[in-house]
This record gives sequence, C-alpha cells and structure tokens, in this order.
Amino acid sequence: MNCALAKGACNFVGKAAPLRFCIRNLSVRARRSVQQILTDATPAAGSEDARITSEGWIKAIRKTKKTTFFHLEDGSSIQGLQVVVADDNLRNLPLTFGSAVSVTGNLVASPAARQSVELVAESIKIVQENDHLAYPFKIKETHQPEVYREHLHLRPRAERFASMMRMRSAATMAIHEFFQEKGFVLVHTPILTGNDCEGGGEAFHVQSEKGDGKKKTEEFFGRPTVLTVSGQLHLEAAACALKRVYNVNPAFRAERQLSRRHLSEFWMVEAEVAFIDELDHLLQLMESLLKDITRNVLKKAPADFAFHMANVAEENHETKIVNMLENEFRRVTYGDALQILNQHRERFHNPPKDGDNLHRDHELFLVEHFGNLPLFITHFPVTCKPFYARIDDANPFHTLSADLIVPAVGELFGGSLREHRYDVIASKCGSGTEFEALKWYADLRRFGGPPCGGFGMGFERYLQYLLGISSIKDAIPFPRWLGHCDM
Amino acid sequence: MNCALAKGACNFVGKAAPLRFCIRNLSVRARRSVQQILTDATPAAGSEDARITSEGWIKAIRKTKKTTFFHLEDGSSIQGLQVVVADDNLRNLPLTFGSAVSVTGNLVASPAARQSVELVAESIKIVQENDHLAYPFKIKETHQPEVYREHLHLRPRAERFASMMRMRSAATMAIHEFFQEKGFVLVHTPILTGNDCEGGGEAFHVQSEKGDGKKKTEEFFGRPTVLTVSGQLHLEAAACALKRVYNVNPAFRAERQLSRRHLSEFWMVEAEVAFIDELDHLLQLMESLLKDITRNVLKKAPADFAFHMANVAEENHETKIVNMLENEFRRVTYGDALQILNQHRERFHNPPKDGDNLHRDHELFLVEHFGNLPLFITHFPVTCKPFYARIDDANPFHTLSADLIVPAVGELFGGSLREHRYDVIASKCGSGTEFEALKWYADLRRFGGPPCGGFGMGFERYLQYLLGISSIKDAIPFPRWLGHCDM
Repeated sequence: MNCALAKGACNFVGKAAPLRFCIRNLSVRARRSVQQILTDATPAAGSEDARITSEGWIKAIRKTKKTTFFHLEDGSSIQGLQVVVADDNLRNLPLTFGSAVSVTGNLVASPAARQSVELVAESIKIVQENDHLAYPFKIKETHQPEVYREHLHLRPRAERFASMMRMRSAATMAIHEFFQEKGFVLVHTPILTGNDCEGGGEAFHVQSEKGDGKKKTEEFFGRPTVLTVSGQLHLEAAACALKRVYNVNPAFRAERQLSRRHLSEFWMVEAEVAFIDELDHLLQLMESLLKDITRNVLKKAPADFAFHMANVAEENHETKIVNMLENEFRRVTYGDALQILNQHRERFHNPPKDGDNLHRDHELFLVEHFGNLPLFITHFPVTCKPFYARIDDANPFHTLSADLIVPAVGELFGGSLREHRYDVIASKCGSGTEFEALKWYADLRRFGGPPCGGFGMGFERYLQYLLGISSIKDAIPFPRWLGHCDM
Repeated sequence: MNCALAKGACNFVGKAAPLRFCIRNLSVRARRSVQQILTDATPAAGSEDARITSEGWIKAIRKTKKTTFFHLEDGSSIQGLQVVVADDNLRNLPLTFGSAVSVTGNLVASPAARQSVELVAESIKIVQENDHLAYPFKIKETHQPEVYREHLHLRPRAERFASMMRMRSAATMAIHEFFQEKGFVLVHTPILTGNDCEGGGEAFHVQSEKGDGKKKTEEFFGRPTVLTVSGQLHLEAAACALKRVYNVNPAFRAERQLSRRHLSEFWMVEAEVAFIDELDHLLQLMESLLKDITRNVLKKAPADFAFHMANVAEENHETKIVNMLENEFRRVTYGDALQILNQHRERFHNPPKDGDNLHRDHELFLVEHFGNLPLFITHFPVTCKPFYARIDDANPFHTLSADLIVPAVGELFGGSLREHRYDVIASKCGSGTEFEALKWYADLRRFGGPPCGGFGMGFERYLQYLLGISSIKDAIPFPRWLGHCDM
C-alpha cells in the first residue's frame, strides 16, 4: 500500500470547502424549509430576515369575513406555516386545498399560541392548482386507511403518511449509524438469486422476454431465478471476509395471504457476525439495536413520533416504547414457553404442539405473560428453524436460535447461530439439484469459514411497533400484496 | 399535535445512556478490530493493554528457520496485523493460508517500518481450517478478475474485493449524509411495479406459483408485473408531498448485452426536487453531490482509496479525481456537442446523427475535448429522452435535460426537469392500457403537483469512476448479468 497516496487523498479533503458552502447561487434550494422557519428564532419585524418566500401546499384553509388563513406545508414537518391573507386581490385567487403555491411576505410573531410565527402574504403565486372537486382526500377529514390505499400516488400528501415516510427515513439512518459506529460493513446483497433461503417455496420467479420480444422465458440467466426472501446466506459469505456485515434491503414473499401482517415486498435489516460462539452475544446485539435505534429516531423526529402517539397509535402505546427502552428484555426457552402455554391451553384456538412453530396468539400471550416487554424465545426445536440454524451440542433436538417477540406486532427479529460444521450443513443442504444450488454455502465451511451468527428484523414491523401502526400496508410508501401492485 | 408527548419522547432520550455503553458484557464484540489495533497508540510493553486476543484469517504467511510470520486480517482494513510465531508447538499447528484463527499474545512495537505494532503469539486457536489445496485463490498471487468472478462466494476474501466492499459501504453513507443534511427524505421506492418507466421493454417479468404449486403464472397481482428500471416516477409522487426526496435502491435491466458496462441488477441513487424551474439548479445539485460524496469517501476510507490507486486503477487515475474536485464541471448543449463531433466525424465508427443518442465513443471524445473534466451535455432533443422530460419552451424540439459524462466511464448521471403540464404529459403517456398504467403519473399534475426535476446516478458506475475499476462486474459484491446469476 502506498501511504503517500493515502495522505495525498487526505490532503485535498482537508483543503476542500466545508459541505454547506458547496452549492453556488442555489436561491431556490437555499430557501429554508417550513420546519426550519418554525424552529428559527422570530426575526425582528421589518428586518431583511423577515421577508421570505416559501413554497408548499395549501392545507387547513379557512376564510373569515376579512381574512383568509391557511397552513403552508412542504413535507418538512408535521406542522404547517400559518399564512395570513388580508389583501382582497390575493383572497380572490383560487386558494384551494391541495394547490401548490409560492408565497412571499413578512414573517411576524404570531398572536396565536399554537405557533411562534406566521407569514403575512404580500404576493401569492399559484404554482399548480388542485382539481379539488376530483381530489379524493377532503379538507378537514381524516379518512380510513383503506381510502388512502386506493390512491397510493396521492397518499404521501396525507399528513399521517408524510409523517410515516419521514420516520422511515429517520429510522433507516439510525440503523446505518448503529452499525457503522460498530465497524459493520454495509453489503448490498442481491435481489436476484437461485437460492430460496427460507425454503418456503414462496418465492417470486423472474423471467425475461426472448430476443424476439414474444415469449417470456426463464433462460436469461440460464437457470431458475427468484427474488430473494432474505440476504442472509450472502451476508454469511461476506462475513467470512469482513467479519461484521449488515444490509438494509428489500425482500419478497409470494404468500397467498390477505392480512394486516403480510406484504409481498418489504424491507429487512439483517446482520451477520463472524467468530461468534455464544447465542447470548447475538441476543445482546439485537437488544441494543432495538433500543439504540429507537432512542436515535425519537431524537431525530420527536414531533412525528408525538403525532403518531396522538393520532395513529392506540392509547398508552408510548408507555410500551418507554418500557422497552428502560427495561431488560425478557427471555424464555421454547421448552419453558410451551409449558406456560400448556397451562393455558383453553385460551387458544390452536393449542401449542411440541415441535411446531408458535402461533401468533401464542406469541402475544407470552409477551403479556412476561409483562408486555419484548421477549426472546430461544432454543427452538430443529423442526421449527431453517437448515442453517446451528444445532445445540447440549441437546441435538434444539437449535441455538432466538426470535424476539414484541407487544401487538409479534415476531420482530429472527436469529440464530449458524451451523458451522461442513458435514452437518452439507447433509442439510439436500441432494441433487437442490444441493448444487447451495454447494457454495456449504463450501464456506471448507474454506476457513468461522462460526457465524446473525439475525433479521422486519423493517415495516419495526415501524408498526414504534408508531403503533395497525396494518403493515400503512408502514411502507407503496405497498404490494396479493392482488395489489398499483403504480 | 400533542407537544407534551414530543417533549416526553425527548426526555427519555436524554436520560438514556450513550450508545457505546449500551452493550453489556460483549467481550467478543468489544474486541478491537485490526484496523483499531493498528491506529491506536502502541501500548507499553507488559501493560494490560498489550495482552490481546484477535481473530481473523491468515494471509501473507511466510516461514523462516525459527519463526513463522503471518498477517492476521479481519476485513476491517487493507493492512493486516503482523503475527510473530516463535514457539515450536504453535509453529507446528496447521497455519495455512486462509484459515480462521484466534490469536492471543502480546502487542509490541514492530521493528519493521511497514507497521507500528506486531502481535507475538502465545496461543493460537485454529477456528476453522482452510482446505488450501482446493482453495481457488493462491497465496501471494493476484488473479485476473475473471478468476474471482468464478468464485463469487469467496471473492470478498480477496484483498481488492474486501476493499471495494468497504468503499461501497463508505460511499453509501456519504450519499445518505449528503441528502439528509440538505433535508431530503429517503423514500424506499418499490421494486415490483406495473410501470416500465424508461420504456425500453427491457424489464424482467415476475410470476408466482399457482396455489397448486405446479404452474407459474403472472396473476399474483392480477396484472403484469415487472422489476423496476428506475424509481423516478414513484419519487415524483413522493416529491409532490415531501418536496425533496431521494433513494438508494436496486434497479434492473434485462439487456441482452455482454460488456464491461452492463449489469442486470445494479444500484441507483435518484433524487427528485419539487418547485424547481431552472435546469441550472439541477446541474448544481448533481455537481455538488459528486464532489461532496467523493470528498467524504476519501476522508472515510483513505487507505482503501490509496490501495485502489496503487493496485486497481490505471496510472494517473488519482489526478482525474483531484481535477474533478478542484474544477467546475464543463457544460455543452447537445447542439454544440454535435457540431464539435461533426468536425471530427472521421474518428467515429458511428458518425453522430442529429436527433439520435450519442454513442459512448462520442461521449468520451467530448470529455477529452473539454479537458478530461466531467461534462454536462444539456438540452437533448425530445427524440433522445423519455416521455417525462420537460420540453424547452424556447425550442420545442429540445428538452430541459442533462447527462453528466465522466472520463473513462461515460454517462454517470442522467437528469431532467419533468414535464409538468397535464395535457402534454397525458398525451405522452400513450393510450389504452399503456395510459391506464401511467394515469396515476399524469394525475399528479391535476392535483397540485408542482414542477419537478431530478436525476439518477448509477452507483456502480460511480465506484468505477472513483476507484478506476475497469469492469462494472467488479464494483458490486454479487454481480448478475446475461447468463450469470450464481449464488
């Protein structure tokens, strides 16, 4: 390695202007957002700072005899900038709900308690009118989530969905910061793959048009190709070189289910750590991920969180989140969990059965039983977990695995140590074509692959849990589910 | 909005312990990485700090009569930690190239100039041996890229690919930081869609197994569904609510091309800004994105950059990057570019033709002509750009569009203002079924959608440009291209 070059690289970094001075003459983009205007100090009346132009959409409009008021919103915050229109010429403009406008005027201290400043309009430009008679969302109305789902292209304009999207952005950043700070390397695992890692047979198949444009075939890659159900196997290959890796990636399931909990396309956060030999270390990593990103998101977006607590979540949802942050997560083995469930068999439509996966109502009962705190269920039997979960030497019917169950949502994380013995994993990878597709994965062990462990967290489920969102379809901007792939 | 709740949220953020104290008893993960060991100050001999355990893989092993030396690498840095093995019992262990080991010993100042410290081994645990006879990568050999591509699951273990992956991670973070700092909201645009936004007909089709598990059909979503070729149209829907949005997302093209420049699955960085009316503002945003993320990456990963300059890129590649950072990008209109190209017609296999897209050799010639700096080509004719590019009022044959061309790589960015007039865009969205699929997009204009503008940058092309990587297949961990979807 040539260190002089590295130093050279650093040098011109050092000489460069700070980032915020790099955009020249960007009058439009240099304008403050509504969020910034509302948090900056009120400018002195008549000062240059007080004269501003602000762009956004008309929301919450109301007219009195002499004055029109509306909120100017630009997506930067849950709160709008109150615009006061007294001039009759301006009042006669088509100031309709949802129209895009540019307002120039004076920023003054607001007499109302709700806001620190308001904008007294001197001129208003209608940038694009809203055909408000045809517009599906009505002023001053909060519609049922199903109504918004019928107009996905307009849905981000509804307050709660704009807020959810800001929270998604903040949460994604919190996740990156968590892992980067701990020396994890972000790995873009592939979407197209020949491996169906969970083995559920619920993968989407991919085909392309033949050269003649007429027939769709699967031969583009010369092999059957599916959309990934998880990046885990690929993360393991990367962990065998980079030790600590993670992804934030889309994943797909062709489950023929209609429920509040199913999406065909969703995002997952997965991490894989090499040289890990204790299940306990994995549990601690999951626990600190959930706590740390939640603290970080609340710090980044307190107003949007508060909006969700007041308008979206059930009552007392915030208490669940506070309790999660302030307490150690509970732990129970699958075996002990089964005993507890059996003591309350009469409560379940599907009674628990040893060797079977727990049902959602079992999981939610256990969470409640353990004080409504996140609950790790550990040591699932081999029949419940995919082929790659490591067998517990102390009990070969068990795996060194753990799911994290949270109130209301159910399973949030699934993780395990990975089987690191070549002969064990090779025998579990099946035979014939099936083995051929996974030979590379078994191979990792032949070539100095250390014990690994990792987990996946459903990102939309995390948002459901954090924000108290009832349907998972309302935790992603453009949901896809059985029969629905609009836009 | 209930502000007391927002404050409550802030309060428990404030009370929480700082992130770094949140992991309890994480002895394994709390261990320093090789990168940290090499940059920390040399501990005093015999001190507690000097006694360490470090895990990783054996690289660069050599044996003298009395001593074995190897580099312990753990993926955290390009440089390994030199391990000195003098004890004969340890020397007799199968210390083979590529094996995973855990070494305990004393960290001492190194007599060699290449490194500040070295680890004198007291005990070595072979965590997983490497079957080095079957291992496809040989010690002390740098193979051709094609060799590594045949073993994608092991490729991250080769120095240059581990380094590329660290750079990808650093570059992704730099991109997020650039946009977040400017108030952009990250939007996860969908992979599954009914819209083929570029209109090239080169989209992959998605199908699922029918309930009976036998037949694969397209009816899962009740409509033809493809993998996205770009998230732009969806970003526009989001920009009509959140004003400034971006994504870092996979995209797909079923191009039947074998070349150094084609991937079937790649990552794109796209941004969309609402209320933008000047092409110039878009150009400035692209220019500052490219400069700022490059400065940030060089600051985050100087050693990996230096490694690429010394071992991967052509000579003088670093000068191209320095020049890019220190100079304003050049600009030329499509019309002027065509004149220049016509003055040198004899140099081109495909002579330039008015109204046609420029060929790669035209683009690279123009970049050279303008001093080997990044070059914006602007105002492409309507025949060259997709239906959504805004028509220039000053010349209805032109669009308000710009591609950014960089040395060696060619097109790095494509962008334009978007057509914001409902009647113009509706007429360009086709008719019948075609229009039905894009009706939502045209609709954005009816409902208060302001003028938008945006761009897309090919992420792998950026890495090629930054690091001087010749084939795009070597700029992504698990490449997919015609006939190749291994793993």
